Amino acid sequence: MTDTRTPLSPTPRSTLTRYRGRRDATDRAALDELLDAAMICHLGVLMHGAPVVLPTIYGRDGDTLYLHGSTGAGNLRAAATGDVSVTVTLVDGIVYARAAMHFSMNFRSAVIHGRPVELADPDARLHALRVIVEHAAPGAWDNVRPPTAKELAATTVLALDLTEASVKTRAGDPSDDAPDLASDTWAGVLPVRQIFGEPYSSADLTTGIAVPEHVRARFDSSVASG
Amino acid sequence: MTDTRTPLSPTPRSTLTRYRGRRDATDRAALDELLDAAMICHLGVLMHGAPVVLPTIYGRDGDTLYLHGSTGAGNLRAAATGDVSVTVTLVDGIVYARAAMHFSMNFRSAVIHGRPVELADPDARLHALRVIVEHAAPGAWDNVRPPTAKELAATTVLALDLTEASVKTRAGDPSDDAPDLASDTWAGVLPVRQIFGEPYSSADLTTGIAVPEHVRARFDSSVASG
Repeated sequence: MTDTRTPLSPTPRSTLTRYRGRRDATDRAALDELLDAAMICHLGVLMHGAPVVLPTIYGRDGDTLYLHGSTGAGNLRAAATGDVSVTVTLVDGIVYARAAMHFSMNFRSAVIHGRPVELADPDARLHALRVIVEHAAPGAWDNVRPPTAKELAATTVLALDLTEASVKTRAGDPSDDAPDLASDTWAGVLPVRQIFGEPYSSADLTTGIAVPEHVRARFDSSVASG
Repeated sequence: MTDTRTPLSPTPRSTLTRYRGRRDATDRAALDELLDAAMICHLGVLMHGAPVVLPTIYGRDGDTLYLHGSTGAGNLRAAATGDVSVTVTLVDGIVYARAAMHFSMNFRSAVIHGRPVELADPDARLHALRVIVEHAAPGAWDNVRPPTAKELAATTVLALDLTEASVKTRAGDPSDDAPDLASDTWAGVLPVRQIFGEPYSSADLTTGIAVPEHVRARFDSSVASG
């Protein structure tokens, strides 16, 4: 299958030169995989001359990352008019080394830089919201009440191009120095992963509505992999 | 027991006014609990006029958050000379609502703003590094080779006061609108949590060194709570 996705074009600020010894993955597949696997991003904007970083949900469709929020949210207003840094991180393990300075984390992290575009077109906005909800809750959109005109009017929807991005990964064993390898201190990795617990229904749910398969399956896959 | 910790003094930028309906927790206990529970933070700095957000490990001792990194890391240089935003987030669940616009995440998030101080005093630097390693790997420091003078010379250590901070939490059921409550769409929460997998030893570990109890216990507590 031909990969028709836009290749990443890392700029100096999206090149994490200082994670030495960690693998650079500038290919789109690694970026897409990470964005699809994670649940939240950390959105960094500039407000009153200082950086402000807040967690938020997102969605990805092709080469575009979508963000949304209240029209009153100061950080979204800032994101609609200036540069942002969107960072997505999954922690995979704690790396125990023989030397203090070699303790580390195994992780996957993507950093996307750019200037988001605020979406005005109603169809484009609705599509973006669908992508965001489906990212958080795959299979949910078709069963929920769609946004009203009033809800849409109160919502800012942003689209960020994924071109200026980089992915960093650290995996595997600690990287101790040769003279430390004879140490009698244990070295290894304590894996970390995110799992789903058993879904529970809202207290005000109408009696008799069962947990749908698209939710149940996420819990089941967690149990199976655990 | 008297709480002698400094109370939080949220400023406008550390007050997340837009997470409406979510509980504000400006007390220090909630901040400390979250910082102690999470593993990484997202450090936002200003570089070349734009925000840059990168994940990093940290440690907390009393009213101080410690960060460290290579002296060559551009984002640490920026953090040593300007304002930062340090954000720590734990995802607790995916909130399935009856209406698209009420989908949400249950989470705990802390945002700390301030201007870090670069530590120069050797004892203060060593203490900070110990706090960071012990945060990532409690119980590990006393068994590892301490930093050499050369390693220390290549490391920037920053201290950030925790006073200008806020904590936000969303927990519990979806917040659907009254007219939607009669919907036949399921509503509820899919819990999310981070667990430890079984620790494994480094491939180059000297034969016969067992996984220490302080590592094994973290995995065991994960299994017990799962």
